[in-house]
Amino acid sequence: MPAKEVNPDIQKERNTATFNPREFSVLWAGGEERYKEKKTLEKMFLEDPALEDDLPVSYLSHKELYEHSLRKACIIGEKIRKLRADGEDGVDTYNALLGGSLGAAILKEGNPLTLHYVMFVPTIMGQGTMDQQVEWLSKAWDCEIIGTYAQTELGHGTFLRGLETRADYDPKTQEFVINTPSLSSYKWWPGGLGHTANHAVVVAQLYTKGVHRGLAPFIVQLRDSDTHKPMPGIDIGDIGTKLGMKSVNNGYLGLKNVRVPLNNMLMKNQQVLADGTYVAPKNSVLTYGTMMFVRCALIRDTAQSLAKASTIATRYSAVRRQSPIDPNQPEPQIMEHTTQQLKLFPQIAKAIVFKTTGDGIWNMYNVISGEIEQGNLDRLPEMHALSCCLKAICSADAAAGVETCRLSCGGHGYMDCSNFPTIYGMTTAVCTYEGENTVMLLQTARYLVKVYGQALNGEKLVPTVAYINEALTQQKFVNFDGSLESIVKAFQFVAANKTRIAYEQLELRRKQGHGTEVAANLCGTFLTAAADLHGRAFLAQTAYTELLELSRQVSPALADVLKVVLELYLVDACLNRIGDFLRFIELTDQDVTKLEVRLESCLKRLRPNAVTLVDSFDLHDRVLDSALGAYDGNVYEHIFESTKKNPLNKEPVNGSFHKYLKPFMKAHL
Amino acid sequence: MPAKEVNPDIQKERNTATFNPREFSVLWAGGEERYKEKKTLEKMFLEDPALEDDLPVSYLSHKELYEHSLRKACIIGEKIRKLRADGEDGVDTYNALLGGSLGAAILKEGNPLTLHYVMFVPTIMGQGTMDQQVEWLSKAWDCEIIGTYAQTELGHGTFLRGLETRADYDPKTQEFVINTPSLSSYKWWPGGLGHTANHAVVVAQLYTKGVHRGLAPFIVQLRDSDTHKPMPGIDIGDIGTKLGMKSVNNGYLGLKNVRVPLNNMLMKNQQVLADGTYVAPKNSVLTYGTMMFVRCALIRDTAQSLAKASTIATRYSAVRRQSPIDPNQPEPQIMEHTTQQLKLFPQIAKAIVFKTTGDGIWNMYNVISGEIEQGNLDRLPEMHALSCCLKAICSADAAAGVETCRLSCGGHGYMDCSNFPTIYGMTTAVCTYEGENTVMLLQTARYLVKVYGQALNGEKLVPTVAYINEALTQQKFVNFDGSLESIVKAFQFVAANKTRIAYEQLELRRKQGHGTEVAANLCGTFLTAAADLHGRAFLAQTAYTELLELSRQVSPALADVLKVVLELYLVDACLNRIGDFLRFIELTDQDVTKLEVRLESCLKRLRPNAVTLVDSFDLHDRVLDSALGAYDGNVYEHIFESTKKNPLNKEPVNGSFHKYLKPFMKAHL
Repeated sequence: MPAKEVNPDIQKERNTATFNPREFSVLWAGGEERYKEKKTLEKMFLEDPALEDDLPVSYLSHKELYEHSLRKACIIGEKIRKLRADGEDGVDTYNALLGGSLGAAILKEGNPLTLHYVMFVPTIMGQGTMDQQVEWLSKAWDCEIIGTYAQTELGHGTFLRGLETRADYDPKTQEFVINTPSLSSYKWWPGGLGHTANHAVVVAQLYTKGVHRGLAPFIVQLRDSDTHKPMPGIDIGDIGTKLGMKSVNNGYLGLKNVRVPLNNMLMKNQQVLADGTYVAPKNSVLTYGTMMFVRCALIRDTAQSLAKASTIATRYSAVRRQSPIDPNQPEPQIMEHTTQQLKLFPQIAKAIVFKTTGDGIWNMYNVISGEIEQGNLDRLPEMHALSCCLKAICSADAAAGVETCRLSCGGHGYMDCSNFPTIYGMTTAVCTYEGENTVMLLQTARYLVKVYGQALNGEKLVPTVAYINEALTQQKFVNFDGSLESIVKAFQFVAANKTRIAYEQLELRRKQGHGTEVAANLCGTFLTAAADLHGRAFLAQTAYTELLELSRQVSPALADVLKVVLELYLVDACLNRIGDFLRFIELTDQDVTKLEVRLESCLKRLRPNAVTLVDSFDLHDRVLDSALGAYDGNVYEHIFESTKKNPLNKEPVNGSFHKYLKPFMKAHL
Repeated sequence: MPAKEVNPDIQKERNTATFNPREFSVLWAGGEERYKEKKTLEKMFLEDPALEDDLPVSYLSHKELYEHSLRKACIIGEKIRKLRADGEDGVDTYNALLGGSLGAAILKEGNPLTLHYVMFVPTIMGQGTMDQQVEWLSKAWDCEIIGTYAQTELGHGTFLRGLETRADYDPKTQEFVINTPSLSSYKWWPGGLGHTANHAVVVAQLYTKGVHRGLAPFIVQLRDSDTHKPMPGIDIGDIGTKLGMKSVNNGYLGLKNVRVPLNNMLMKNQQVLADGTYVAPKNSVLTYGTMMFVRCALIRDTAQSLAKASTIATRYSAVRRQSPIDPNQPEPQIMEHTTQQLKLFPQIAKAIVFKTTGDGIWNMYNVISGEIEQGNLDRLPEMHALSCCLKAICSADAAAGVETCRLSCGGHGYMDCSNFPTIYGMTTAVCTYEGENTVMLLQTARYLVKVYGQALNGEKLVPTVAYINEALTQQKFVNFDGSLESIVKAFQFVAANKTRIAYEQLELRRKQGHGTEVAANLCGTFLTAAADLHGRAFLAQTAYTELLELSRQVSPALADVLKVVLELYLVDACLNRIGDFLRFIELTDQDVTKLEVRLESCLKRLRPNAVTLVDSFDLHDRVLDSALGAYDGNVYEHIFESTKKNPLNKEPVNGSFHKYLKPFMKAHL
């Protein structure tokens, strides 16, 4: 924190908070030990002057940004080496360093080495045989080779079976010949692929003995290890500037008759023998595991985005004064405006609920993947369905929430020095990668209509959809008394009815003679709506259970705050889907007004603790990197300081005046 | 259009369209004459090689971008001079050249000279006396001086009375002494202020004879006309990088005892005499006129944004193939997916409805401002209320619509070569400037609750709120038969009820002892919700009236398409506010399902004409500037071409490899 005095408006907020922020900070970090580890890592990385920027990266050209980022990425890599040598490189460390918290404080537009650590190394670990791991892993861990993971193609994304890149086995030389036979089959998007990695796992359609065998992963050397020049047959480069993640060095890759040895195919799950005999994988569901793993992690990332954005906007709203409420008084802190509270506080609540849900589903994932390893696949479909819709909902809500926070800061939110544009770029990307959101919702819906049919047949469903059994026994929902429990129950009743409608529409189209798939496409909007409500019902249930449980474990002062957060979250969530509630539950105009008045009351109750609550997310000023959101609240001073770094302001008169403007202005004289 | 062959998937769409796109293009342009003018301007500006970019501007640094943009701005300025000399510089020409169509094709991130033309010159015309106009206007028109308009301050925006910059009249020297007494009073945001303009209209608190007189505009010279160096007492620069409008050269300005002659205060409305005597303005409502004018213009801009974004996404969706619907068939054009149609087609419909509404309200503005000039202010509050909420709704919907279109293109929409990031940056800015959206809605709501009270007292209301009179006579809405007319009527009934609730809540708080302003703040969310529905009811009514009227004037083939657009717009708008409909109108679950099925049917009916409909927005490839949205549909080729321009790809190995990466990789060896 800067030595400067703290802005009195924000200090006042801290003085009047009713709880101790450190208590929540420790909870948020995951316990006392993790809290301390976090502080140690911050010290190690944020006090190294080599990792500080004199010039905000938004002033750099694309090429300068890459060079700047690679330099820092190598310093981070060196420090990771050291942590690893000391045995201190746990999963949390990689998450912090390569993700949106500490990582973003150092490389806010992303790290070109991230995919090496989070995809290349884990793929070798997960899909390589023991021999292959011996051959490749230590080189990869030591960064003697830098890799990436090349799957998506220019013309092919979500539908993996559509990939065109092919690997033909040549038994004569015991090599695979890899080709991207068309422009649309160029590998596209892998991080670090442009100019950084010299190896990649390339996913291709495998052909042996002239027969198509499905997809397989191959380790391909892309660049010479000394000169870094592209290897023969490799057409490679950076895909260009983007909305966000600007220094990830996303690349493209064309392969023309690139030959790799037999042993470069990762063979843990499937094998090709020297003569070209193909041995199919025993179990294809295992790949679901990785996808679920990633999606569960993404849910936590969305919480982090909301925490950042709501911290910046809430602090700004404590300092910014505008538009008198009482004309006889000076302009108030804008956080006094109820409309402003409605923008900010639901985002704070969502950050907390998404984090709690992310942690919960993480535990659930661990339990279920343990079961899967024991050969018990019972809960796999349920878990898959849940992780899909939660990924979609949390990413969409987080991206919208970040924008709501930005807009709540007026024009100043539009400046890069607010950091909102970068946070948005990071957050909205999650809507697309690791399974496009609409596709995700359709996956969940496919599961929901299936189990709905089972429930109609009297089957008892697994826990996360058991509410469908319950709803089928109710003609209507009669117990809506406005209690939090009844809001949760109502969410489930509504979700069950959305699935009912999707199911009925699907049946109707089938009866009209459409095949199942065509019928599903026709009903697409019914299906996605059902999946959306399923996820929201789960979020409501989790928020209710987990936050109440948490309240029992903490001090009464913090418990009171958490209960307001819970109520705010549930009432706001309900009002945001009030059309669905009114459709399936008998509520009057007055009932709705009551909920709206209650929302207003939640906002008012959270107001005194809003700044302290975001403080207790404990986001370092460097992580926030925002003139609007610094801990000291000296917003205007920080904004003004940022203009001093602007290269345009280093000279009083820009050269273009003499070159272009003056001749133009004097032209007619 | 490029000579290359058109992508067969998109050609097929054009071959099977049921209407002639040129007919709609002419309508969209505003008639045959304007259509031709548009083509002439495009020829003049887009065929000049000096205005083409070899390198997409997203690859430039902030400083390079400014210099690049100023060069082009001067060329445009020179051409404007010529058009002006030929008497061909009508309002449409300035709109096209400085706005989001032709202007964006040349300077996609904005023109640093725009504010000179659209604010500096008009302010002198509107607020200068005849003598002052003689003195300043020809210099300004000739660009002998370049000006901007400096009103907003670092700490003060919407609430103009809060501005801190002050001008003290010194009768001894007959000068004003202008000061920004604090950091928060620095002028902030004016376009071109950073390094381009050498003059500005500075809005300041006027003091004469030690008495505060309110705000007044002063012409201040900022930079020396020969050297361009800042004048004494002037602290000036560029505010830095932003989410969008990156080459507008938004600036900051501090003034320290800057003296300007008496005659530099623009005195058409109020005067200061040589001895410091102050003559107050006769009529303060006149300033409403300019604000309304700008807001009406913004509504059309939002239509243009949606037209661009929906053109790009629709063309892409005709070419991109993904995810089989029928597993026995190849991957279909993604436009076949109903969920994709639901993303695209409502944006096309909104583009058309917002354009129609923008034109309509433009005419209304002209009628009413004619009345105002005759001294008849009757319709001013109504018009003000309407322009405020429409500005807020159209900008928010357009920004969200652009993002929906971007996300509908998956990862490729995230690349700058799609042009979505720039279009979004332009569009979302409208939510904040010229009256922040929430403030706008509150202005409308203030009017609505006022007239609601009048209606309760039996007064007959003016046309745009007459539906409130009608609703007061109805206990409930009984005639919802699903016809388009009944959807429009229902929208009005719902809007009236939202205003009723805001009014009741306001009264309740007053009865609880709160003053009107405090009560209004407490009810903020009820008020903004009422204003939102008022605007949406107006949009529904306008869409219904205007599109049906238009349908009668065009060919039957085009009329059929317009009717589908209308139905799609209304059903979608209704479903988006279905919570409000269910709250005030007795609708069953089945009624809602019926509307949802109908939406699906609208999508299906628009599907065959979707590409041709966006074609007929007639947006030049340079205006779209999108690898995804080019007329020829060669998406992958255009994306790939764009990577060839990337400066990072000009060398096979980036210098940073030798400098950073290689030492890092070899460190442990």
